Formats: sequence, C-alpha cells, structure tokens
Amino acid sequence: MRFDILTLFPGMFEKVLGESIIGRAVAKNIIKIRLHNLRDFSTDKHKRVDDYPYGGGLGMVLQCQPIFTALDYLTEDIGEKPYVILMSPQGRVFNQNKARSFLKHKNIVIICGHYEGVDERVIVNIIDEEISLGDFVLTGGEIAAMAIVDSTARLVPGVLKEEESHWNETFSEGLLEYPQYTRPAEYLGLKVPEILLTGHHANIEKWRKAESIKRTFKKRPDLIKKAVLSKDELIILEEIENEK
Amino acid sequence: MRFDILTLFPGMFEKVLGESIIGRAVAKNIIKIRLHNLRDFSTDKHKRVDDYPYGGGLGMVLQCQPIFTALDYLTEDIGEKPYVILMSPQGRVFNQNKARSFLKHKNIVIICGHYEGVDERVIVNIIDEEISLGDFVLTGGEIAAMAIVDSTARLVPGVLKEEESHWNETFSEGLLEYPQYTRPAEYLGLKVPEILLTGHHANIEKWRKAESIKRTFKKRPDLIKKAVLSKDELIILEEIENEK
Repeated sequence: MRFDILTLFPGMFEKVLGESIIGRAVAKNIIKIRLHNLRDFSTDKHKRVDDYPYGGGLGMVLQCQPIFTALDYLTEDIGEKPYVILMSPQGRVFNQNKARSFLKHKNIVIICGHYEGVDERVIVNIIDEEISLGDFVLTGGEIAAMAIVDSTARLVPGVLKEEESHWNETFSEGLLEYPQYTRPAEYLGLKVPEILLTGHHANIEKWRKAESIKRTFKKRPDLIKKAVLSKDELIILEEIENEK
Repeated sequence: MRFDILTLFPGMFEKVLGESIIGRAVAKNIIKIRLHNLRDFSTDKHKRVDDYPYGGGLGMVLQCQPIFTALDYLTEDIGEKPYVILMSPQGRVFNQNKARSFLKHKNIVIICGHYEGVDERVIVNIIDEEISLGDFVLTGGEIAAMAIVDSTARLVPGVLKEEESHWNETFSEGLLEYPQYTRPAEYLGLKVPEILLTGHHANIEKWRKAESIKRTFKKRPDLIKKAVLSKDELIILEEIENEK
C-alpha cells in the first residue's frame, strides 16, 4: 500500500512516520509513504499556492493549479488514478470502519488542507472523499493525515506482529477494554485486584467481561447502546444498571 | 500555558510542534512545550517501563513506577499539581468544547499511552481525564497528543493573529463553512460562481449562508440537528429539505 502526502510542511512528517510500528512497516517495504511539498508544483514564480477568497472574507484559500498539477504528476508516477482524500473539517468524521474501507485502495493520496480552505473546484473535481479527524479545529491537515496513515497502515497484513494485531479490536466488539494491571502486585500500597493473581482463567475472563461492560457503560454510554451483546453480557449490563 | 508531554517517543514531536502556528507561539513564549522520555524515570536497571499483564493476555502494560515518579518530578518542577491527561482509546472523545475547557489549566501534562494499556492504578490515582481522539486505533498516544496540543494552543490568546482567529469558529456556530474560491476565475474551464464576482456583499452573504446550510445538511446531518438556526436560516433549510 502506498500513501502520497501532499502538504506545505513535509518536514513535520519525517520523524513521526519513521518511528514505531509504521517505521518498521516502511523499512520492511510493506508500506510506502511519499511526501510531496505542494509548493514544488506551483507554476507561480514565487511558488505561491494560495490567494484571497473571491467574494471577500478573511484568510487565504489554496489554489487549483498546484493541486491539479500535483495530481497529474502523481497519477502518472503511480501508473493509475489514486484514491484522493482531502483532510478537511468539512469531511466525514474518521473512524475504524473508515480506516478498514481505505484498505481496498492500493494507492492513496492525502491532501493536507491549510489556511482558510481549498478552492471548491478542487473538491468537486479531484477529491474522492473529504475526511475530518473530529469536531475540533487543527492548524492544518498534517496531524490529521498522520493519524489516518497510522491507523490505516496498521491494518495492512504484515504490518503488525501477530501478538499485536488484537489491538485493532478495541472498537470492533463495540466495548472498551477491561482494566489492565502489571507488576508489582503492590505499589505504594495500591494493590492489583486479587482475582487476577489467582490463575483461575474462567473467573478472570468473567471478571474482565464485567469490567469491560461496566467501563463502557460509565465512560461511553453511546457505545453501549450500539454494542451487540450476548445473553450473558446483557445480564451483566442489567445488574450494572440496577446498581445505579 | 505549559504542556509537558510524557512519551516513549519524544523525537516524534520535534518537527511537528516546531512548525506553523504552534512553532510561532513557542518562539514567542506564549506556549511552553516540554518533552519527557518516560524511560528516563524508570528505576529499572534496563530502563524498562512495561511488563506482562496480570491475569494473562497478549501485549505489554505500562507500569506504575515510571509514571508515578515522572508526575512527582513534574509537580515539583512546575511548582503545583498540573492537570493530567492520558491519551487512551478508553477516554472521552476530544472535541472543540473539550479544547476550550483545557484553557482553564495553566499546566497540562499529557501522558501518551502505548502497548496494550496502562496499569489501572495510574488511571485511578493520577489521571484527571482520559481523552480519546476518536473511535479509531492508533499505534500510540503521540499523534493524538499532537492534535490536542495543536487545537488547544491555538485557542490561547495571542497565539493566532486577529485575521486567523475566526478559524476557530468552524464548530461554534454548528454549521460547516461555505465553499471557498480563489483566483483564477476560470481554471481548465471550471468557473467560480458568478455571484462571488459581483461585489454585491449582501447577496454574497445570503448565498454563502445558504451554501453553508446546504453543505451541512448534505455532509453532516448530525450537526444540522444540533445547530441553533435563525428564522431566515430555518426557511433556507426548509427549502433544501423540500428539494430532496
């Protein structure tokens, strides 16, 4: 899978995508990440990429030409039309299902929006999908693009080791994970729940399931409404609701 | 405002927080960002910070000691107890209101979760708030922490120039922004809407308002349900709904 990132700040990505699991996947050549400076595609003699909005208003708008030219270049370099994503607060909110849906594309171009916005002719004619990281305002699309690449790339087969791959399941069951504890069994007087030290796996499993439901009920009631629960799980949920 | 970031990958942040608007705010000393490697606080001779989960299961869990020790150090260095956030898929989903709520804290510590999770005794005893960037799985909390710092820091008075500050308003009115266009008026046969070239400000305003409502209706119907609309805006919305 290849990601081409079109940005005014390619330097921001260098360290981020080189570290950790994604860096390992790039080193193993399972994932390719190419960074492109939008300015390099400007035909303006000062390498300008933005201009004032028509109709008035504050801020600057990214122009058509550098983005259209960059896309032509990338399409030729890749050898086929890539799937083109624009990071934008106007887009659909990214989530794990969206990450999974990106896996069907071999080549993804991510355009990092900046300034006041992007000329609408780009959005209508070039962009396959506008994606927002969430309902908050970022300085630019760069950090959002990093999140998209990270969470999508880790779903590509071979990127995660087998023992890591269950990390992707946090949202697939629709419940938050149970609490975790590690050594020491007592730290500054704070103890690990005794059940975890018993070695009784069936009981531990049951405790964890109950904690998982309890936690989701408390922290993310919106998720519990959508979760598909078994009969046993529904009984646990009922008990928790009755406690309140 | 000061952010202290506790992470296993401090290098990831270097370029990101030095660029763009946040870099400018750091240079002007309006914002302080300090990076700390969690490993430096480990009393283990191999600087280990994680261990296997009690009760079995895959993955590694971040231990109490390095985090408790780091927090003691930071509290002393800052001179008072900071507000402590853990980046975690278990947390409440971050949004613009949450960013605004962080402004009341002068000192924020962000702990980047990693591996399978963090010992629950840390969460119960040290953490003021668990925050998730959204319903997707990231390799670690680092990219999520960048997003939190970026969107919070840009709300600090003096960080944005006056002409930039309205960028923060995307979600405050509850509507998506209207489409933007910039020069040239025609590119590859694609034209800017004529109304934007008329200079008739009242009409442009009206057109933009209608486009903004239309867009929100189409792309984010969940937002339009929550938006507080004026009488004029409600009439526009009704027209759009009737068209469908």
